[in-house]
Amino acid sequence: MFFKVISTEEALEIVRGFVPVEEVKVPVSDATGLYLSRDIISPEELPGFYRTSVDGYAVKAQDTFGASESLPAFLEIAGETLMGDVPDISVSYGKAIKISTGGMLPEGADGVVMLEYCHPLDQNTIEVSRAISPLENVISPGDDIKKGATAFHARRKMRPQDIGLLAGLGIREVPVFRRPRVAIISTGDEIVPIENDPGPGRVRDINSYTLNAFCLEQGAEPVIMGLCRDDFEELKKLVEKGLTCADTVWISGGSSVGTRDMTLNVLESFNHMELLAHGISISPGKPTIIAKVGNRAVFGLPGHTASAMVVAEVFLKEFIRRLSGSNADDTVLNRGIKAVMSRNIESKSGRDDFIRVRLENDNGKLLAVPVFGKSGLISTLVDAHGLIRIERNSEGVYQGQVVDVMLFNN
Amino acid sequence: MFFKVISTEEALEIVRGFVPVEEVKVPVSDATGLYLSRDIISPEELPGFYRTSVDGYAVKAQDTFGASESLPAFLEIAGETLMGDVPDISVSYGKAIKISTGGMLPEGADGVVMLEYCHPLDQNTIEVSRAISPLENVISPGDDIKKGATAFHARRKMRPQDIGLLAGLGIREVPVFRRPRVAIISTGDEIVPIENDPGPGRVRDINSYTLNAFCLEQGAEPVIMGLCRDDFEELKKLVEKGLTCADTVWISGGSSVGTRDMTLNVLESFNHMELLAHGISISPGKPTIIAKVGNRAVFGLPGHTASAMVVAEVFLKEFIRRLSGSNADDTVLNRGIKAVMSRNIESKSGRDDFIRVRLENDNGKLLAVPVFGKSGLISTLVDAHGLIRIERNSEGVYQGQVVDVMLFNN
Repeated sequence: MFFKVISTEEALEIVRGFVPVEEVKVPVSDATGLYLSRDIISPEELPGFYRTSVDGYAVKAQDTFGASESLPAFLEIAGETLMGDVPDISVSYGKAIKISTGGMLPEGADGVVMLEYCHPLDQNTIEVSRAISPLENVISPGDDIKKGATAFHARRKMRPQDIGLLAGLGIREVPVFRRPRVAIISTGDEIVPIENDPGPGRVRDINSYTLNAFCLEQGAEPVIMGLCRDDFEELKKLVEKGLTCADTVWISGGSSVGTRDMTLNVLESFNHMELLAHGISISPGKPTIIAKVGNRAVFGLPGHTASAMVVAEVFLKEFIRRLSGSNADDTVLNRGIKAVMSRNIESKSGRDDFIRVRLENDNGKLLAVPVFGKSGLISTLVDAHGLIRIERNSEGVYQGQVVDVMLFNN
Repeated sequence: MFFKVISTEEALEIVRGFVPVEEVKVPVSDATGLYLSRDIISPEELPGFYRTSVDGYAVKAQDTFGASESLPAFLEIAGETLMGDVPDISVSYGKAIKISTGGMLPEGADGVVMLEYCHPLDQNTIEVSRAISPLENVISPGDDIKKGATAFHARRKMRPQDIGLLAGLGIREVPVFRRPRVAIISTGDEIVPIENDPGPGRVRDINSYTLNAFCLEQGAEPVIMGLCRDDFEELKKLVEKGLTCADTVWISGGSSVGTRDMTLNVLESFNHMELLAHGISISPGKPTIIAKVGNRAVFGLPGHTASAMVVAEVFLKEFIRRLSGSNADDTVLNRGIKAVMSRNIESKSGRDDFIRVRLENDNGKLLAVPVFGKSGLISTLVDAHGLIRIERNSEGVYQGQVVDVMLFNN
């Protein structure tokens, strides 16, 4: 049998090599969290006119030059502009027009004095106690964005303020990569649906549920293919179906050598199958298979939920990001959180250890406390906030050392 | 007019004082990201039987005592157990039964020797080159969780692994707080729907879109109430409608003094209205109103999108968390990310300044670069990854100082 055990970096490089799924047009209000598939060019200036950014009086800035508390300028109130209206009066020298934040600057005015520096003397006159420079307190056409400028580059993940800019430009539909679809198959003769009483010897189908939730959390669309016995033909059919209805297939289970072999046999029965990894030198999660069937990735994940989840955290998160359209630039934000180790942890060299840790607040210092327990236990993951990685060339981490914690819900 | 300007801490205390919305039962696979409304007690042991955590041979541990490479123990292969089956053979002294990871331990066995330490001599005999202790490589009933133990405490946010534990216990429905509903009203005579050409003097309704996206991102359900002219009766009707169909009402707009006054007048016309804040001493975002009508919070947000989004980041995120069922314990994870200031920023005392920053990778060091620009511009938010807070008693931050960045998408 062919064994191809790869390193964490090699596995990450493999998942980063997959390209995004196809693009679709969605209403701008549905684009939150999705990645743009094309550059967005601004169709117009934003704002489209001179606006005031304060409440006050629109004036000719020159009329205020030299004005101060002790030597105010006196201006005649020539009227008021109403919100949403195009002012029908204009400002000439010696005049001022009352204006509210966001209002359009009347013709002739080139600045706005804030209300607090304007003191009414009588019905028709204000005393201006402060000089303004031209365009002070004014937003000019195109200050937010110019017509023809690139509002967003392709591959950007849309956040609420980004949606806001698109709305401001009147863009109602945007080209994005659709959510990747993930076919999830749970294998193993010992697995029963969760509504069944497993009885002795059998266990409920945990992995379909964790992977389903993981996909939802990562913005992917899970497609639950159901349970599969340890049977070549049955698994092959489900994988075939998964390859047609989804962008990637995740087979979980096969923690025993026999099932792993069967997963491999099924994959090898496909034309255009390329085995990219048969094992990753990590713990937990070593018995992971990565294959490419056509242009789709198929993952064989460990049966232990805890191991499968570590593989999901470390590799499948990044994989989903790539299918969703993310590019490498995001990594500046994906650094996790720094914490201080609560104790020493030794590590075997030759593999990367991913240690589950709980975060605790120790007088304002963030402590990473390892969660121990047999690796097959899901409760160890339930108790943890994230993972730390002990690299294969390191002998461990020391109490007091600052470590990067990869947060589960990040 | 009554002015009640409060501090950041006071505003946070107010939003933290609101209680979660009502509980509902949802299928376990829909619970990702929701908060439990009750403790979950384990109805059974997990796992329910003795399982092996490795591939190997089930034995009596005593038979391996003293075994080593140079002095192996010889055991007779008494059979094999199949996955999902209750073994129909038992292990007696001198015997071994082949078993796969996750398989049920046969009667009589109290440990499992990993396959790599078992060398077949012939069809019926293995050589065991390593001693195991009793229960080695075995997961015992209840190791993950005991029957009657608290699997989760109320107020916990459900993550994929948590969903997995529930599935493993056969729990198909869970009591959670439903997603809070947020009624969003955009006010201002100058606001037009985004599909319209605003023409001079008017602008498109950005805030409905940013707040809608913000709610979706935070796990709340936005209810878009639509645009409202600067008209007392119209706004009052929309607020009334919002109070009946949602858990909270957010009125955005009213950046001008006149509209702000109108929002206040409308709120004051309600019975059982309590004005909790009329201004928060922050920049941007000062003209924020917080009121309680009955037991529902009503927020009057600044009209400038950039200011409204800062208020959303700082206060409404926390508010949504509280309505969703979060309790204070989450804060250990909500610390943001540390970065180094790229330059000095001065700050006025007497108010908290929230500065938009862009994160840049400077040779592995994370740099926080302030995004300057007029506060009314949405592009400043589009260019930023998050906010830093300069507290009101501080005169600013210095180049090289380590700051906490509140990430927008956190």
